[in-house]
Amino acid sequence: MRKIGILTSGGDSSGMNAAIRAAVRTAVSGGMEVVGFRKGFQGLINCDYMEMGTMTVAGILQHGGTILHSVRCKEFMYEPGQQAALKSLETLGVEGLIVIGGDGSLKGAMALDSLGFPVIGIPASIDNDIAFTDMSLGVDTAMNNIVYAVDCIKDTASSHERTFVIEVMGRNCGYLASTTAIAVGAEFTIVPETPFDTSEICRRLQTRYREGRNDAIIIVAEGAATAREIADKIEGCIGFETRVTVLGHYQRGGAPSVFDRLLGSRFGKRAVEMLVAGEHGKMVGLCGRSIKATPLSEVAASVRVPDPEMLGMAEVLGI
Amino acid sequence: MRKIGILTSGGDSSGMNAAIRAAVRTAVSGGMEVVGFRKGFQGLINCDYMEMGTMTVAGILQHGGTILHSVRCKEFMYEPGQQAALKSLETLGVEGLIVIGGDGSLKGAMALDSLGFPVIGIPASIDNDIAFTDMSLGVDTAMNNIVYAVDCIKDTASSHERTFVIEVMGRNCGYLASTTAIAVGAEFTIVPETPFDTSEICRRLQTRYREGRNDAIIIVAEGAATAREIADKIEGCIGFETRVTVLGHYQRGGAPSVFDRLLGSRFGKRAVEMLVAGEHGKMVGLCGRSIKATPLSEVAASVRVPDPEMLGMAEVLGI
Amino acid sequence: MRKIGILTSGGDSSGMNAAIRAAVRTAVSGGMEVVGFRKGFQGLINCDYMEMGTMTVAGILQHGGTILHSVRCKEFMYEPGQQAALKSLETLGVEGLIVIGGDGSLKGAMALDSLGFPVIGIPASIDNDIAFTDMSLGVDTAMNNIVYAVDCIKDTASSHERTFVIEVMGRNCGYLASTTAIAVGAEFTIVPETPFDTSEICRRLQTRYREGRNDAIIIVAEGAATAREIADKIEGCIGFETRVTVLGHYQRGGAPSVFDRLLGSRFGKRAVEMLVAGEHGKMVGLCGRSIKATPLSEVAASVRVPDPEMLGMAEVLGI
Amino acid sequence: MRKIGILTSGGDSSGMNAAIRAAVRTAVSGGMEVVGFRKGFQGLINCDYMEMGTMTVAGILQHGGTILHSVRCKEFMYEPGQQAALKSLETLGVEGLIVIGGDGSLKGAMALDSLGFPVIGIPASIDNDIAFTDMSLGVDTAMNNIVYAVDCIKDTASSHERTFVIEVMGRNCGYLASTTAIAVGAEFTIVPETPFDTSEICRRLQTRYREGRNDAIIIVAEGAATAREIADKIEGCIGFETRVTVLGHYQRGGAPSVFDRLLGSRFGKRAVEMLVAGEHGKMVGLCGRSIKATPLSEVAASVRVPDPEMLGMAEVLGI
Repeated sequence: MRKIGILTSGGDSSGMNAAIRAAVRTAVSGGMEVVGFRKGFQGLINCDYMEMGTMTVAGILQHGGTILHSVRCKEFMYEPGQQAALKSLETLGVEGLIVIGGDGSLKGAMALDSLGFPVIGIPASIDNDIAFTDMSLGVDTAMNNIVYAVDCIKDTASSHERTFVIEVMGRNCGYLASTTAIAVGAEFTIVPETPFDTSEICRRLQTRYREGRNDAIIIVAEGAATAREIADKIEGCIGFETRVTVLGHYQRGGAPSVFDRLLGSRFGKRAVEMLVAGEHGKMVGLCGRSIKATPLSEVAASVRVPDPEMLGMAEVLGI
Repeated sequence: MRKIGILTSGGDSSGMNAAIRAAVRTAVSGGMEVVGFRKGFQGLINCDYMEMGTMTVAGILQHGGTILHSVRCKEFMYEPGQQAALKSLETLGVEGLIVIGGDGSLKGAMALDSLGFPVIGIPASIDNDIAFTDMSLGVDTAMNNIVYAVDCIKDTASSHERTFVIEVMGRNCGYLASTTAIAVGAEFTIVPETPFDTSEICRRLQTRYREGRNDAIIIVAEGAATAREIADKIEGCIGFETRVTVLGHYQRGGAPSVFDRLLGSRFGKRAVEMLVAGEHGKMVGLCGRSIKATPLSEVAASVRVPDPEMLGMAEVLGI
Repeated sequence: MRKIGILTSGGDSSGMNAAIRAAVRTAVSGGMEVVGFRKGFQGLINCDYMEMGTMTVAGILQHGGTILHSVRCKEFMYEPGQQAALKSLETLGVEGLIVIGGDGSLKGAMALDSLGFPVIGIPASIDNDIAFTDMSLGVDTAMNNIVYAVDCIKDTASSHERTFVIEVMGRNCGYLASTTAIAVGAEFTIVPETPFDTSEICRRLQTRYREGRNDAIIIVAEGAATAREIADKIEGCIGFETRVTVLGHYQRGGAPSVFDRLLGSRFGKRAVEMLVAGEHGKMVGLCGRSIKATPLSEVAASVRVPDPEMLGMAEVLGI
Repeated sequence: MRKIGILTSGGDSSGMNAAIRAAVRTAVSGGMEVVGFRKGFQGLINCDYMEMGTMTVAGILQHGGTILHSVRCKEFMYEPGQQAALKSLETLGVEGLIVIGGDGSLKGAMALDSLGFPVIGIPASIDNDIAFTDMSLGVDTAMNNIVYAVDCIKDTASSHERTFVIEVMGRNCGYLASTTAIAVGAEFTIVPETPFDTSEICRRLQTRYREGRNDAIIIVAEGAATAREIADKIEGCIGFETRVTVLGHYQRGGAPSVFDRLLGSRFGKRAVEMLVAGEHGKMVGLCGRSIKATPLSEVAASVRVPDPEMLGMAEVLGI
């Protein structure tokens, strides 16, 4: 392996830069060259790249986002896009590729590997919806961002007497909602995986109110409902004045947590070592204290099962 | 002066606890007793109070919100409510009162003082809309909260290529919006004090786009428009995909900044010293490096004029 | 099980309050009573306790330290102290005990369990030196505290041209030093587990200097050397001006990270469930995505082996 | 004015980058060119510079330190160094210079202005020891850094029972020590401006101990004593176990607070406007809500007088 390519794809997440830095420096210290493709698979198709050395990745470990930029690329989902990508790789003499991204991006990685080009995938998605890794890159930072904000809101909640509905990310996956609900001591959690009943929430809010507990925090995953919808139902049903916060893209960025810096560094280093060892068509993943690899085809065929222990734990502890 | 009362009223802001602590400890070290009324003027009317000593206020300096709780109290706007309040104060033997809150609360303080009961006001309002003080309590913390969140969003903005519209507090006053826009390097600021023209913003967004600068941050004060409205207009007008964040009550709370801890401590100490010295009917305020007092009637009659230097400065520096 | 006791022992760590809260609320919702012993085993010996209900643990999830306080207690290492502890437990009608602490505390827990009283241990130690758990309570928060501080120092390091030596905790274990070195991009790491050679560090500093790279970050675990010693050797050997920071107890406290809030919540809940199920003499531990229990005797007999992948990784990536 | 120079000198402080950015963008939008000299006056002497445009300063507002780097330069204190500097400025066609730094740097600025070259100074020094400005650039960030760390230490202080001695910056000036002591609720403050008596501190520590208050925070400015010295005296005198933290350069850097971003932006903009208006030989300073200018000669001849209100306030409130 003399030359390695690397790209970030899909929604950005904190820790991508740590993975890029580790991959580049591991490759350079092994005598290889590295090219970084800009804007994910789009850059691969357009042969839009930059040569990357030790100093290219200096000082990026601390920063959220991705220096290689990222877009969602529909063109790459089809044969012609993939052939154009292969051509770019061949033209540049790249012999192996590292793809950092979420489930869509990992499917793209798998497609390229199936066409005979060696690829290693690194799971990055703040939703934590990828199977075969305890944690995806960016989840820990996103959770800490959310909790930092909700801790602030709780100061007001304890000073006034109001119900706050806070909308967090998570289209198909309630991981962020259910973990942060535990971590802030929220009273209610609404996730896409479990049916919810607003009238039951209203009933319990009224019970709490009769006990003299007038404030409450409700965390809702965007894939289950919008915060506005929940707030309107509560106000319409029992007349409680509620306040809405939509954290939006605040959750995604910011200086990565130590967890994400370590995870990104380990993923990036291991991805290069695997390509050098001739392994490919796999995704690196965290498994306890170790980094383990799983075929991309297995990853694509699996859905991460939520921990039943986590779902509902906030409610038990929020009594 | 043998006994002092204290209360917090209106929207909570970070630093209220610092002011409570300083007032209590200054009073206690001067040999006075202190009672704290719960839930603002409502507690005054209902004679809902707690006795406060040195240890009651231990460990609160670090926390947002207010340990005395706060509500907006309509009943106190009228004569019967005010008479009930006077009766509570007389019953408890309180000889002077400190009111911590925003413009409405300071008007309540003035009303009570006009009825012959000595009151000192402390300006607390994250909008920074009170005249005769360089800064109100809670503004600095709120600005830092906003900027922390927008710094995170900028990581994503620089990784993807999108326009972000972020809604911050400020009903009649664009202070938070215009200062945080400077502090994050936002491209556009929309405040209530100045007319804005969405089509002009769209035109400039398109110019930037043609120059290859596809990301932009727009800070909008809630009193001028909702973030959703601005985003919809931009999408409708030039088709740019935009993202919305409504920071909501996140802005209000959290551990107070050093600025607010110092300001609250100085305000609380000075308020007690003034009552002891027989001064009343005044609001303490920050004036450069000094704390100065202004009659509450002058405060009520004045509107804080925005700094023309600040308004528009973000646009000059965001070129 | 009708009544459960709980205590925190040894050095405090962030997340202890989360574990206390979860244990109390899990017990209460299962119909049990809870008593908390103050100041660790000392409180057990002196029968110094508080009854704990749902509201006793309200609002503590966000705070570092431990509301039950903690000391190191020599008296409990010997038979008479342990007998006094058993007597307290019997007098109060406590039927099971949860001990939260580091290796010394877990040995105390084992001693009590051996005497026939059911005990469950929860590993809490910022050194991460306990076997049979991927992470101990407080490690993640400590790492983030360290990295926050060193990120600040790096701003100065890149503006001036100096070598900074930063001393972090870790008497026998270099986990904190080696992980944070990776996370900040430090150039050198000095840990107790591996011999180090200051003259080799000096030689490499000079090589970097000749390449025009004049700044460097050295992370040293307190168990290997003091920062002052390393700085003095570098100054004496090659004359470089160095700056020393000793982070001290700053590392230990502060609002717990989400990781530690979740870990503490899960540990506390599981500990109660195990006591109820009749399990005892065990320590709960994190094993990948699951909580697993290990006999305290096995824990006491084992030493956590450092990950060879982590040791030295900073140097590879810091090229 | 067609071309402006800018440099940062002396110890770095957070907000320097905000000032650089504002100066560059104000100049560029006024049709001027800007050159930045590297490593302070040394770069001026060596004609080591970079041309600066709008994009050179993109994304630096958020970062501590200074992109222009900074050193202390003895050579510039003497005539030959200053003449070399003038020659560089003439060669490059620079017509006005902005110097960002502390008292030594402002004296350098004055010397150059006296030789007939128009200079404007911007006060930047975390010690806040410069007269004619309410605050110097970097002070607010440094205070928040210190307080963040001491808040963490207080968690441990309240969980264990110990005296913590924390050393902060301030060679001749106790501003940082006295303000942060108020902001964290420290029990004792030791500053260079006021004589202190360790045996008095010991006596009061023992009184507190007899009252059951065993923990205490002592903030010491480095110019008064080292934390180690104070800790040793306390241990030697009354046998209390104490813990030492030396915050070191952690205080200096990190993402600037909003206060410092605004102050730097306003200083940088105004400095350019003054040069354009033909004003020079002055330092910009914060005076309440306004920016005011003072002749550099007056600044050099004055010493900032500490606020007597601040000194000793921590002790009053720490009762």
